[in-house]
Amino acid sequence: MSTVDADPTSAEARGSAGPAGLGDEAYRTAVLDLLGLLAHGELTTFARLANDAEHAPDLAGRITLSRMAAGELSHLAVIEQFVTRLGGELEAVMLSYADVLGDFEARTVPRDWWERLMKTYVGYGLVTDFEREVSGRLDAQTHAIVEDVLADNGYADYVVSVLAPVIDAEPQLGSRLALWGRRVVGEALNLSQNAMVRHPSLARLLGGEDDAAEAAKVLNRLAGGHARRMGRLGLTA
Amino acid sequence: MSTVDADPTSAEARGSAGPAGLGDEAYRTAVLDLLGLLAHGELTTFARLANDAEHAPDLAGRITLSRMAAGELSHLAVIEQFVTRLGGELEAVMLSYADVLGDFEARTVPRDWWERLMKTYVGYGLVTDFEREVSGRLDAQTHAIVEDVLADNGYADYVVSVLAPVIDAEPQLGSRLALWGRRVVGEALNLSQNAMVRHPSLARLLGGEDDAAEAAKVLNRLAGGHARRMGRLGLTA
Repeated sequence: MSTVDADPTSAEARGSAGPAGLGDEAYRTAVLDLLGLLAHGELTTFARLANDAEHAPDLAGRITLSRMAAGELSHLAVIEQFVTRLGGELEAVMLSYADVLGDFEARTVPRDWWERLMKTYVGYGLVTDFEREVSGRLDAQTHAIVEDVLADNGYADYVVSVLAPVIDAEPQLGSRLALWGRRVVGEALNLSQNAMVRHPSLARLLGGEDDAAEAAKVLNRLAGGHARRMGRLGLTA
Repeated sequence: MSTVDADPTSAEARGSAGPAGLGDEAYRTAVLDLLGLLAHGELTTFARLANDAEHAPDLAGRITLSRMAAGELSHLAVIEQFVTRLGGELEAVMLSYADVLGDFEARTVPRDWWERLMKTYVGYGLVTDFEREVSGRLDAQTHAIVEDVLADNGYADYVVSVLAPVIDAEPQLGSRLALWGRRVVGEALNLSQNAMVRHPSLARLLGGEDDAAEAAKVLNRLAGGHARRMGRLGLTA
């Protein structure tokens, strides 16, 4: 990987509306803010998967989810390294996201193992899609880091392999989980919007700050991603 | 590392009362049983540290404990590889320990963050000492694996750095935590004895099955390790 000081992003490479380079202070500040979100997301996903693992009905599920949790956390070192290279400090950039979950957890308490799986599937999927939206608008170096962090951890495939047959066999459970998925995604979208309001630099990275149409497009794509995830389970979003 | 088929342990190397080699079926079965205990221990420690991380009062503690949790889980791959080489299967060797925790958790519910830290410190320390006792009586190959898994993860140092100053400043808290430590270690010793009763091959590895004096020595050394841990916090066991 090249050094941070070099500007790896040319307008040619990423289009004339491409991002400023990391040499631009405002842009670098926004990137550090984004890295704080990513780091917080990894820590939260770690906690969620570890917690899910404790509730898994069998040893195989417990091992699988524990391993996925540990895999998520391994990204924290990559993020920390990049934050340090940009002159930031991991805890400092994470701190402003400490209360970002707000009452999301309180509003989405799963009643059983299936709702628990669905909640992580929907919430994790949406957050990943959100971060990937931002990732497409970054300089090449930061983009590479973010894509590395967002690499598929197999979680979605795992949930589909566990949930799809159960839903197929029990349509009533399917209806309940479809409703539940709608509730979780609604809360998660609220959460995303709150995060954007509290972190204008994220909105700016997404190009949505001055452009309501662009923000609407992003939300539409997030809703589309959710619909595809529900579709994989044979459910409508 | 040499192949599993080779017998890496000579009587000269480990004394005339040294363990049978991995070619000995009864011994290999006992080793697989031990590996199941180790794997279960790693998974449980992972869950405990991840759970503690969620209760940490600050972000630094949360990050540190999450990282330690993920580090523990990384040992599972090492254990799995060795189990496979011995002709076993990870889940199968773990299954018999699924209920080993019994009502330990229910009997030791921490009332605050300090009791929580102390519980993991005491319980984790005792389990590690117990496994190290067994480790000293193994063939060289298995010994190397076990020592790798038991390598210091910095947890004890972390707890001492957090708890010792607080205890020093608040003698009343110290008294409460000393009492709490005694309760936790009592329950943990019960747990160890139950595990030995249910897994006679472990008792055999420890040499305690036919030798009550030897078993008493092991328990004495475990109590000594606990006293040293409490001493690091300025408390008496």
